[in-house]
Amino acid sequence: MSANASFLIHHPRLILYFNKPSTSILHLRQNLSLRHLPQSLNPSIYSSFSVALFRSCRFSRPSFSLNPRKLSSSSSSSSSYSTTASAEPPSLSSNDNGGGGRSGALSSPPVIEVPQKIDVNPPKGTRDFPPEDMRLRSWLFQNFREVSRLFGFEEVDFPVLESEALFVRKAGEEIRDQLYNFKDRGNRRVALRPELTPSLARLVIQKGKSVSLPLKWFAIGQCWRYERMTRGRRREHYQWNMDIIGVPEVTAEAELISSIVTFFKRLGITASDVGFKVSSRKVLQEVLRCYSIPENMFGKVCIIIDKIEKIPIEEIKGELVSVGISEAAIEELLQVLSVKSLDKLEEILGDAGDAVKDLKQLFSLAEKFGYSDWIQFDASVVRGLAYYTGIVFEGFDREGKLRAICGGGRYDQLLSTFGGDDIPACGFGFGDAVIVELIKEKGLLPELSHEVENIVCPLDKELQGAAATVATILRQKGQSVDLVLENKPLKWVFKRAARINAGRLILVGNSEWQKGMVGVKILSTGEQYEIKLDELE
Amino acid sequence: MSANASFLIHHPRLILYFNKPSTSILHLRQNLSLRHLPQSLNPSIYSSFSVALFRSCRFSRPSFSLNPRKLSSSSSSSSSYSTTASAEPPSLSSNDNGGGGRSGALSSPPVIEVPQKIDVNPPKGTRDFPPEDMRLRSWLFQNFREVSRLFGFEEVDFPVLESEALFVRKAGEEIRDQLYNFKDRGNRRVALRPELTPSLARLVIQKGKSVSLPLKWFAIGQCWRYERMTRGRRREHYQWNMDIIGVPEVTAEAELISSIVTFFKRLGITASDVGFKVSSRKVLQEVLRCYSIPENMFGKVCIIIDKIEKIPIEEIKGELVSVGISEAAIEELLQVLSVKSLDKLEEILGDAGDAVKDLKQLFSLAEKFGYSDWIQFDASVVRGLAYYTGIVFEGFDREGKLRAICGGGRYDQLLSTFGGDDIPACGFGFGDAVIVELIKEKGLLPELSHEVENIVCPLDKELQGAAATVATILRQKGQSVDLVLENKPLKWVFKRAARINAGRLILVGNSEWQKGMVGVKILSTGEQYEIKLDELE
Repeated sequence: MSANASFLIHHPRLILYFNKPSTSILHLRQNLSLRHLPQSLNPSIYSSFSVALFRSCRFSRPSFSLNPRKLSSSSSSSSSYSTTASAEPPSLSSNDNGGGGRSGALSSPPVIEVPQKIDVNPPKGTRDFPPEDMRLRSWLFQNFREVSRLFGFEEVDFPVLESEALFVRKAGEEIRDQLYNFKDRGNRRVALRPELTPSLARLVIQKGKSVSLPLKWFAIGQCWRYERMTRGRRREHYQWNMDIIGVPEVTAEAELISSIVTFFKRLGITASDVGFKVSSRKVLQEVLRCYSIPENMFGKVCIIIDKIEKIPIEEIKGELVSVGISEAAIEELLQVLSVKSLDKLEEILGDAGDAVKDLKQLFSLAEKFGYSDWIQFDASVVRGLAYYTGIVFEGFDREGKLRAICGGGRYDQLLSTFGGDDIPACGFGFGDAVIVELIKEKGLLPELSHEVENIVCPLDKELQGAAATVATILRQKGQSVDLVLENKPLKWVFKRAARINAGRLILVGNSEWQKGMVGVKILSTGEQYEIKLDELE
Repeated sequence: MSANASFLIHHPRLILYFNKPSTSILHLRQNLSLRHLPQSLNPSIYSSFSVALFRSCRFSRPSFSLNPRKLSSSSSSSSSYSTTASAEPPSLSSNDNGGGGRSGALSSPPVIEVPQKIDVNPPKGTRDFPPEDMRLRSWLFQNFREVSRLFGFEEVDFPVLESEALFVRKAGEEIRDQLYNFKDRGNRRVALRPELTPSLARLVIQKGKSVSLPLKWFAIGQCWRYERMTRGRRREHYQWNMDIIGVPEVTAEAELISSIVTFFKRLGITASDVGFKVSSRKVLQEVLRCYSIPENMFGKVCIIIDKIEKIPIEEIKGELVSVGISEAAIEELLQVLSVKSLDKLEEILGDAGDAVKDLKQLFSLAEKFGYSDWIQFDASVVRGLAYYTGIVFEGFDREGKLRAICGGGRYDQLLSTFGGDDIPACGFGFGDAVIVELIKEKGLLPELSHEVENIVCPLDKELQGAAATVATILRQKGQSVDLVLENKPLKWVFKRAARINAGRLILVGNSEWQKGMVGVKILSTGEQYEIKLDELE
């Protein structure tokens, strides 16, 4: 979109403006041009109001100076969605105070205590979302929501702060040691939620018989884990969850994977970029059963197994021994876990158990849903949450560069573990971090820019009210308007128009206004004309 | 929308179905009808899968039983947007376990430890958002976003968890004693944000000269305050903020109030429902200056003044005396604060100061923006945050039943207090609680129901894959589909269709499927027909 100030001078229509009396648009601008340099060149104009305020006032700024604890500067990038370490955003050192730029010498108010600068970074491991990052987040969430809508799911949410008890399980999950937990002022043990599923289970139990099953719910919520800041991990992320409550059949898992595939496709991600590894915890269950390993070991064994490929295999074995699994069972387990084909699995486990049956049904349904080429059996997938009981799956990038993109599975016993009725359920979590790394890798990052339909600019301080009227009229018609709130030279206005990708510039000049008209410039074509206010669409 | 199962039986087209071989839709349904009663009548079908699972498996549920700390049951309603105390949602007592309903006796798995039930309520003062409440929240947020878009604002967000230092001021604000603060695992003092403005100021300082002023930013974020649970207050709420950074002129405040008025109008709220009380902190400043009260008292005095009408006037006086304000100054202050007319204010303060000048300009602009009938001068408005420096305003319901609906003002010194450059700024916060009370009062609550365009149902377990194909095709065309994931009788399907406000029922029967066709029933009209799959739009 072209938007340059010099255009007005060369355009034939401009002669009209030039030949008008002193209230016409350009003449006014010329008169103002000396006083109204762009802000960066003439900071004193910019802050003239506050200068006046301080001159007429004996107060310095209120002295509620902060107690600024400089947090150690975060090693992770502070850009919300960047993955590689980037330079810290420009931060003003204290040397900048009182120097040039926005706050010139004139505008420095009479301060007694010089305030110490706060740490301008968000707490370690957390993110700000400035507009450019927020646009990406909103775009991502919009896709989460649109896919959830296509699948007929209803949105829900839960408190960010939950009772700690909801998350404390005895299976040795990472999650437990990573809780942001504390006692509130009422002496309750609470925690920032590390995931959404326990809250969902709690709400389903609370709703009890007032809801009809199945429930198909989705949520997009922020979750926290206090992890060591390795591998570019953050301590918070947003997670898209879809859950189906009340369907015992594998159709539910098949539907969930279909929704994730739909999401990937919307973003331009293909089956050659991403796949799903699918298994069932019943595979492990059936192996453990053969070795008469007590049922209460199941969760713990899953958590240990989940660390395969993350820590050395000898450590895995050590951990399994330490929870009492025999060497023979460990060998059998590890052998089964290396199986990558359903036929081979059937050879080992036989066809009597549910593990093979469920998986076969899932692969058959995948064909009908049209995502066979996205999924593969992989017995090593168990997922790191203690509560899964059946099918488990995770999305991975085929280049093998990234952590799991998403993961989920069946958790038929979570509700009864919480003391509710026994209701079958399955769901997945899909974080906002790895997917952004992936679409950056693949060049699929959308171009998202701030766009405003109109920029409305008064050509005179006395016309600020008139410009407000014009802006109001346009907004009532559903048009977005950036209203220029100060007297600024046209050059500044055009720069701003370009920055906000304005479609039209509406200039409110005195002589036009007296005729009930405004000047319009279409910024993409350069076309410009005068129009009656009530004809402005 | 009518959706009843008996329709099919009486409709002439149905004869077609009846006269078909056994694979036709109704015949199948009849065969299935005994096995497939609605779930509520025949729970054993519902949980047959999990029964099978437990039968073939010696494991009971994993024993990671929670450590269930029963929180005191919340005195506030757990419905997100209800204001009057309502009955607790039906919660299943432990007596319900193993009884009738969803989990019949058959489905009870062999449990060794009976798990103790968790507290099903969200922590005191916080909310769940089940679908019906989430729809209202989404509708509200959508209106916040649409108004912000109309005004050309860009969305931003900040961490929920911030460094505590950001919120600790020395002015005796309520906010300080109400922080949800704690030490994280890295020994940093952090707090759940009680408001958004300090984070915004931090981000603006961080961005420094990389951004061009003015910034027009909005945010919708959750905030926490640990308050006593009086007057139906909660400990968290969502807040819509709009802020203009870099404009010293009152045009900015006028623009902000215009955006709130636009929001109210969208919801059907009029100037006879709601008004804005407007004043300027410069009024107080000018009075304090006359009595040579030190500038560092300003914030504290404002905080005390803000409690007028909340606590007895004698207490206010006591507090003012205790911070060292003379009796004479207090009398003068209280007299000025009772002024409700700008002319009267001008009589007292004269026309030399900025207070009167700013307010006059604001009221003049209000006329041009078209919201004169919404605003009134009221010197008693000071707002409870220490950092305001100029115009302050709050939205109130004219019936006087509710707390302030929103509030904001100018905070020209917050950024420099944090050690940044001196940049003028103003903004407002608009919570999600009082507005919902107001629209309930006024009968303006929108009817928001879950709606799905299609419900797709296989008439046979063997057709689940075919139904999945149909669902996928419709979803690829942008249609929302609730896919029936289990074998269910038509009666159940019609009930579900009605509950989710489905537009069409798509029945996938064997004989139709073999011809590449499906049965369609338009649920609003009762019209039904068969259609080729590739003609289904």
